[in-house]
Order: sequence, then C-alpha cells, then structure tokens
Amino acid sequence: MIGIEAIGVYIPETRVSNYSKKAQFNLDDYFIEEKLGVTHVAVKGASDQTSDMAIRAFEALSRKSDFDKAKIDCLIIVTQNPDYNLPHTSAIMHGKLDLSSNCACFDISLGCSGFVYGLSLIESFMQRNDLHHGILITADPYSTILDQNDKNTSLLFGDAATATLVNRNPRFTSGKYTFGTSGKGYSELICKDNILFMNGRSIFDFAARQVPADIKLLMEQNGQNIELIDKFVFHQGSKYIHQTIISRLKIDPQKAPFAAREYGNTVSSSIPILLEKELEDTSVNTIVICGFGVGLSWASGILFRTSN
Amino acid sequence: MIGIEAIGVYIPETRVSNYSKKAQFNLDDYFIEEKLGVTHVAVKGASDQTSDMAIRAFEALSRKSDFDKAKIDCLIIVTQNPDYNLPHTSAIMHGKLDLSSNCACFDISLGCSGFVYGLSLIESFMQRNDLHHGILITADPYSTILDQNDKNTSLLFGDAATATLVNRNPRFTSGKYTFGTSGKGYSELICKDNILFMNGRSIFDFAARQVPADIKLLMEQNGQNIELIDKFVFHQGSKYIHQTIISRLKIDPQKAPFAAREYGNTVSSSIPILLEKELEDTSVNTIVICGFGVGLSWASGILFRTSN
Repeated sequence: MIGIEAIGVYIPETRVSNYSKKAQFNLDDYFIEEKLGVTHVAVKGASDQTSDMAIRAFEALSRKSDFDKAKIDCLIIVTQNPDYNLPHTSAIMHGKLDLSSNCACFDISLGCSGFVYGLSLIESFMQRNDLHHGILITADPYSTILDQNDKNTSLLFGDAATATLVNRNPRFTSGKYTFGTSGKGYSELICKDNILFMNGRSIFDFAARQVPADIKLLMEQNGQNIELIDKFVFHQGSKYIHQTIISRLKIDPQKAPFAAREYGNTVSSSIPILLEKELEDTSVNTIVICGFGVGLSWASGILFRTSN
Repeated sequence: MIGIEAIGVYIPETRVSNYSKKAQFNLDDYFIEEKLGVTHVAVKGASDQTSDMAIRAFEALSRKSDFDKAKIDCLIIVTQNPDYNLPHTSAIMHGKLDLSSNCACFDISLGCSGFVYGLSLIESFMQRNDLHHGILITADPYSTILDQNDKNTSLLFGDAATATLVNRNPRFTSGKYTFGTSGKGYSELICKDNILFMNGRSIFDFAARQVPADIKLLMEQNGQNIELIDKFVFHQGSKYIHQTIISRLKIDPQKAPFAAREYGNTVSSSIPILLEKELEDTSVNTIVICGFGVGLSWASGILFRTSN
C-alpha cells in the first residue's frame, strides 16, 4: 500500500498586491476579489532557483514528518521552469541534499495537471520497483517568465513549492485516475522567448468544458457518488473558473475550497498546498483532486484515508 | 504482461564528418576511430524541432508495426531539449498527430539514462492505470546546444529520435531495474546559456566506476549469470568508455555492440536504436540495457523475449 504520508509547503513571504496595480490595468476590487480571487501573488527571491524552492519545501516536510533522509530512494520534481534544461533539477537537488546513490531521480514536465500525474507516477514507479521512501516535488516559479505588463498573467500566477512524502505507511491512498490531453490547444498557454502567454478565454472554456466531464468519469470509474465525497481539491486556476466548475458539478462550495487569494495560482503546487490541510482534518475521508491547464492537459484522482 | 512490441528509429540523413575537423582539432584517425569511435555525427535540419524528429520516429514505427493510432492512450517523451519549456513536447506531438483526448501525455527530463527510466516508467504507469497502447519517445537533438569549437562535445554527439511501442502483446518484457544518482556531479555535464559543457574525464571516471557495479547489482537482483546473457545494449557514450566497461565486466565484445560510428552519441536514443535490431534477431532471448550520463544518473534493466 503506497500513498501520501505528509506534505510540506513553501510559499515565499514576499507578496505583490494586485490592489497596487488597479490604475495600471484599470481594475476594480470586484475583478480582483471575485473574478481572479487573487489579491496578492507570492514572489520568490530574485536569486532563488527552482531547486532552492524545492529544498525549502523539503525542509518544511522534514519539520513535520519524521523520516530518514538516507532512506529516500525516489525523488521526482514536477516543473517546467527547471534550474537548467540539462541536467534535471532533481539531480541538482539530490546533490544539494546529499541523498543516497541508490535514489532514482527524474523530472516530469507538466504544468497545472502535474501534481495529479506526478502522484500517480511516483506511486506506480515505486510499486513496480519495490521502492519505499519517495519524495514528489512541485516547483514552478512563474515569476521568472511573467511579463509584468500582461494583465492576463501577472495578476494571477504566484510562486510556491511543495514536497510530498510517499511511502508504504500512508495516510491517504489513491483509487483510479483519469488523464486527458487536448494537444491541439497547446499554444493557448505557452512560454516563448522566456515570456508566458495565456489566452485566458480559451483556457477558461477548456476547463469549464473538460473538468466537469472528467470528474463525472472519475466518479464512474471509481464507483463513487459525487454527493458523498468529503472534499474537492481542484487546481486553483482563478476564482471564476473554480466557481464555474463547482457550479456545473453542483458541488457544495463548502466542500471545494478556493484558497489562493493571498498567493495566487501556483501551477502544480496549488493542489498539494490545499491537501496539506486536509491531511490533518480527520473528518475528511475522501478527497477528489483535479489539475488542468498547460498542454492542454488534465488529470483527476481520488484519495481515501487509511486507518493509519 | 506489458513490454516492448516494436521500435521505430529516425536518424537524420545529414552527417558531418569528423575527418573534416582533423586540422581544426589536431586529431589523428586513431583518436576518431578508436577513442571516440565516431567518424560522423548526424545533424537534424535547422528548422526541425524536437517534436518533428519525434514524429518521424513515430512514422518509422507506424511503417513496421500495425497499430491503431486512435487507441494510443499514453505518450511519453524523454528529452532535455523540448520545443518549449512550457508546454511539454508530448502535448505538441499529441496535437500534431491528432491523438485521442483520453491519451495521457507528459515529458520526462533525463539524458543518457532516459530510455531505461522511461521504459520502466511507461510500463509501471500503464500497468497501474490499465492502459494498453503506449508510445515512449526519445528525442534529444544536441546539435542545437553544441559549441562547434568544443572538441569534447562537437565531435561526439549526434541527433536522433526513437519511438517504442509498449503494449500488452510484447516481444520483450522486463525484469527488475536498478537506478542511481550522483547529483554532486551535476555540473560535469550541463547546458548553460544554451551551450553544452562536458568534463569528459570526469564523466569517463564516473561511468567506468558506476556502470560495472550497477550491472553486477542488476544480475544479482534478477538472479542472472552475466555469462548467460545474450546481448548487452549499453549507452553508446564513446568507443573508449564502452570498451572500458565491457572489459571490466569481462563481457565478450561480440555480445556488446558499439554501433554509433556513423551517427554519434545520440543520448537517450542510443539504446533503442540498437534494440530495434535485436528485436528481429530471434536468437537473442535476454538483453541487458544500461544508460548513464547527465545528472549524473544511471539505470539498468534486463529484457526477456516472450513467446509472441
């Protein structure tokens, strides 16, 4: 039985206020608070690389979970903003943390669907290869690729990293996953010449159409009733897309938190940031997770609390 | 039972001769033929992107294996030279090939160990998620990051791509894999500011030490006798490192081909290029594969012919 034992989160303390950009972009408070749902975005230190953020998330995990660093046998980083394209950032992190030489390391290139894919991947890779102590990192600092004059992106994306401990003594295990791709839309969310471009309308339409259908498929494949799920931890794209999705699925908003207000859309870190809290809430026994975005790509999963 | 059914290979027709560089680098034929073992390097077309090469390998696979494109439910690309950092190149390929919307797509960032890792990953991911028709691509065109005045790299690396069909009717299935990382050495093979740097001596020492030990571990974990293995398909780093490894392992050179002479070190494609031929040779029933390089990273596996 392999699954999530604990999650560590790093969100940089530096925040840029969207209220300070009202004049620049001709914004009102309603747009900031109800459409974006993001009042501040978190920004990493200028010299911090992706591996530095990853290590801070790892340190946060170390403070809350008692594990032996020397026993880590799998380290996966989900990122599309690596320190270098070559080598993979997980190797750099492996070196900085002085991990064991028998630790398997690789990076996965995925955006907002990356945590769900990554969780499925680390679970299946560890199961197949008889590994016992895995770390799944998400770290995608978009601040390095944002055009501060682009209203579509600069008000929305924040920096963060997370570290998830995956082992054989988990608090949550997963059911069946669903995955999908709409590659024809790949240029709607793309980084060219180090600048992020997003066609917000197109991404909204994609998510509003694809995510509800995928959640229904997930319920069906897992033989679950959506009304009996305790929590829905969806990618925090924006408040408007989040509300649209839960409204289409007729989900009680109390069960589907939107909590990116003070740090922004943190790409692959958005789901584990919220999951960290749900791990502690023992009244929550079933959690649906769903990520969607860059690719265009989506992935959903369901987590069940174990008796541990 | 999941494993390799067929492999398609794309090596660009354009070749640059190392003999033409004898004056520039003060080389002799012995160095070219016996140390490097590479007389020509393959070079992609200037406007070809990684996804274009990947699609040519996919087309080569389509010509030799009868599969239904519409049924592909998993597409993984191993590369450290993606079309863009964001989105992943597998999404772009998905769009260009007009694949099914229920096809899972992601990229893996790994270098010369990438095929072995990628094979293990696609097998375990497909098994866990009940997928049936997977494509594993390797495509890492180093020509775009080579300094043509750098003797250590420009004489060695060639461009290629491969496509491996992984399904439930395989010709080869795998045993246990071994994986390892030496992240402290990450800067010995790195791409900074779009230029590849390699400390050749350091990489040689790493491979000469690590690979023989890993092959012994692989044999032990699979309960196999190295003398009874039919073929050893090792990463084609250079002829000298290849000979050093097989000599240290006392492997009959007839069983361990070095065949990169006319196209170069093709990074993650080096192993599947050779494997393609071994699939057809029905006298070959057991194959050991091993990749090593960027990271520093290594991975080994063993393939067994099925009765299909």
